[in-house]
Amino acid sequence: MKLTLQRIEEPFVMELTNGQSNSCLMDAIPSLGGQNKGFRPMQLLAGSLAGCISVDVLNVLRKQRIQLKHYKVEIDAKRKDEVPSPFEHIHLIFEFDNSVEEKNAHRIIGLAKEKYCSVSASLSKEIKITYEVRII
Amino acid sequence: MKLTLQRIEEPFVMELTNGQSNSCLMDAIPSLGGQNKGFRPMQLLAGSLAGCISVDVLNVLRKQRIQLKHYKVEIDAKRKDEVPSPFEHIHLIFEFDNSVEEKNAHRIIGLAKEKYCSVSASLSKEIKITYEVRII
Repeated sequence: MKLTLQRIEEPFVMELTNGQSNSCLMDAIPSLGGQNKGFRPMQLLAGSLAGCISVDVLNVLRKQRIQLKHYKVEIDAKRKDEVPSPFEHIHLIFEFDNSVEEKNAHRIIGLAKEKYCSVSASLSKEIKITYEVRII
Repeated sequence: MKLTLQRIEEPFVMELTNGQSNSCLMDAIPSLGGQNKGFRPMQLLAGSLAGCISVDVLNVLRKQRIQLKHYKVEIDAKRKDEVPSPFEHIHLIFEFDNSVEEKNAHRIIGLAKEKYCSVSASLSKEIKITYEVRII
């Protein structure tokens, strides 16, 4: 896997590219001189966890021939209050339309998180990852 | 920290937003039905590591009053060949213009990686993270 990160604007605006025409901006926190022109790196890390579990979840629902109309994940992450400040707890709220049964959703998310998600397997074991399911 | 991930296109295209008007697309690998319309979650994870170290590096260089014209990081990541397939090794190639001395760059990057980067501190200890410096 090859990626490139390049600073495109002073002091901290950087562009991540993956060689498949995808681009994503990163920036530092405002207290350091960031301008909110991109994601903070820790935001991207939390987002990658939600995305990884989601790919598995969407894939299983598709195999179950469920016609999903609405799929959203709210990410709520807490960091340790020290330097460095790694994540202490990442909580994910999965939202589905009512084509999905809650029990099924719980089972699929649990399996994705524990057995299939490579982002989850790349994170420190000290980070608590929890989730809940909302059917709307 | 709060973020939202929403599927915006079937089967796997998802948009990550952070409430500060930043947006980043994610997609699954083509073998699963992805269309290369966004980053794979594991790409974002590797990118977040490079971004996190870079914020620290750029911040220290700014404090040293170095007028940096060129800053780029090439990311080369290898995953385990199993399921799940976490990162085994992430290698970062830091590229600076010649306003930066190589020895100084090595010292700053090493400190960022070991002592300040919160993404690094959130990753599994089993992932080998290495780097090299290029002055161009």
